[in-house]
Amino acid sequence: MHILIIGAAGMVGRKLTAALVKSGSLRGKDITRLSLVDVVLPEAVAFKSEVTARAADLSIQADAEGLVQSRPDVIFHLAAIVSGEAEMDFDKGYRINLDGTRYLLEAIRQEGLKRPYLPRLVFTSSIGVFGAPFPDAISDEFFLTPLTSYGTQKAICELLLNDYSRKGFVDGIGIRLPTITIRPGKPNLAASGFFSNILREPLSGLEAVLPVSRDVRHWFASPRAAVSFLLHAAEIDGAKMGWRRTISAPGLSATVGEEIDALRRVAGEKAVALIKEVPDERIIKIVDGWPRNFDTKRAESLGFKAEKTMDEIIRIHIEDELGGKLGV
Amino acid sequence: MHILIIGAAGMVGRKLTAALVKSGSLRGKDITRLSLVDVVLPEAVAFKSEVTARAADLSIQADAEGLVQSRPDVIFHLAAIVSGEAEMDFDKGYRINLDGTRYLLEAIRQEGLKRPYLPRLVFTSSIGVFGAPFPDAISDEFFLTPLTSYGTQKAICELLLNDYSRKGFVDGIGIRLPTITIRPGKPNLAASGFFSNILREPLSGLEAVLPVSRDVRHWFASPRAAVSFLLHAAEIDGAKMGWRRTISAPGLSATVGEEIDALRRVAGEKAVALIKEVPDERIIKIVDGWPRNFDTKRAESLGFKAEKTMDEIIRIHIEDELGGKLGV
Repeated sequence: MHILIIGAAGMVGRKLTAALVKSGSLRGKDITRLSLVDVVLPEAVAFKSEVTARAADLSIQADAEGLVQSRPDVIFHLAAIVSGEAEMDFDKGYRINLDGTRYLLEAIRQEGLKRPYLPRLVFTSSIGVFGAPFPDAISDEFFLTPLTSYGTQKAICELLLNDYSRKGFVDGIGIRLPTITIRPGKPNLAASGFFSNILREPLSGLEAVLPVSRDVRHWFASPRAAVSFLLHAAEIDGAKMGWRRTISAPGLSATVGEEIDALRRVAGEKAVALIKEVPDERIIKIVDGWPRNFDTKRAESLGFKAEKTMDEIIRIHIEDELGGKLGV
Repeated sequence: MHILIIGAAGMVGRKLTAALVKSGSLRGKDITRLSLVDVVLPEAVAFKSEVTARAADLSIQADAEGLVQSRPDVIFHLAAIVSGEAEMDFDKGYRINLDGTRYLLEAIRQEGLKRPYLPRLVFTSSIGVFGAPFPDAISDEFFLTPLTSYGTQKAICELLLNDYSRKGFVDGIGIRLPTITIRPGKPNLAASGFFSNILREPLSGLEAVLPVSRDVRHWFASPRAAVSFLLHAAEIDGAKMGWRRTISAPGLSATVGEEIDALRRVAGEKAVALIKEVPDERIIKIVDGWPRNFDTKRAESLGFKAEKTMDEIIRIHIEDELGGKLGV
């Protein structure tokens, strides 16, 4: 079992790598080789079997071809320019998020035209494929109406993944990830950053800014759940997906107020007191166009599982990032 | 008012050209130039103003750039590899239907980056963007689930049209055309051909083969309605579309049996007797995955109109193609 992770240097890529190193197997088979790729050289990891780490740019066709020449059995494709950057740099977003994925699909197809090759490709899509107005809970059959170039690029890749899978060129599964919370690391400028910031920073005794009102509702899953989605997507029987190869992953629909209530229950009033409410009209407006809730019957019937409470999401952060100890 | 028609040599392109020549104006403005383009040289037409006809291949980037250098005010993009060919020749379908459209959008954007340019682009999409299973009537919010490469390419172009419009690079409107019936000309090998054949051939005293059962339901509009959709799409206020720039055109949902009943009413039992039922499992299977009915509230609220009866569709063929005379 040879596994390739594209986007291995990112937050989810590193956690996925760690999970694969820990389990040592996938789809009931021993992992004999792990290839880690990103646009920056990923950190090598200690592993019982062969590990190769390399820098490659998927948006260069020859790089995409080079990645699949060794015929990995399972490919995780997590690489992308994020939403904000894709919106600011139109050409770069399309080059990396669309052309890069298309080169990868095409490289896989071309390998298969030489001699039979049908790897499982797990692709991370995004709830950014949906745009307002939408129903309170977005069903598995609601149409894709992206309001960003990033969402457009992800929606196009979902369509390509379906078509290449239907034609028998790849065995693809796409997963629309909820907003990963609590995202570890420092606060960043992503418009969605505050959903994590208002929990992560107070848990470590630091102040955090809340730019929107407490009744804003959003769609969450922990980093641990995100990794479990990717691993499960690698394991499931593709035939069960039919030709609708991308699904909205399960998640937790919660308001900012519910995030804060959970923080109070887990870390007390002194943690909550570190949240400073500083309304930001720009962020309020962006967030207003985001999905709030999903009906993920299909993913659940396929065995995908997410957290059921915000308390759980906070406890996972304390376990996985803080060594089990509160910093407040 | 300079109008460019890409795909001008096709059936709809020729009828659209004729309609524009007849009216002489669009959007309340005099047509001062008509540019006709197709991969084969379109027939020139007699017109009060300048007409240029040229052969160009949209899937060659320089050709796409050349088409918009003269900055047409309205562009009709009807060019495509049809469903059957796109399914058989994967590379050609993506090259023409996806890359070609993307080159066109990009050429328009690049013109606009030189100095302000925002043409209305009317793009013909297809009900092939939907695939079974679907509800009896497909709503304006049902998701795109193509089961062909052609449908995938059209769905991707719809997403690109939205994004380029949202970013202010083009003023795009996409129209998902119903199956055009009665399609003039000879019977062809398209799987959908029989829907027209069983009416057109008997109306001219010729036999036609019906390969499916009479209870098969499908979604129809006349060639005259198709042209009216395109003209209306060129006229309407783009702002009314929001950022959901493609709509399913209105049409008539009817069964093959209802087609035959209408033929009997318009042309008598001797016309109906020319239909030979020869079940074809291959076609039965293909047609089984096609849309049967739509709920087109949105298009209707925007003023798009189609035929309400199959009798009307037949009479339009007799008027427009047979000089008002039955051949049976």
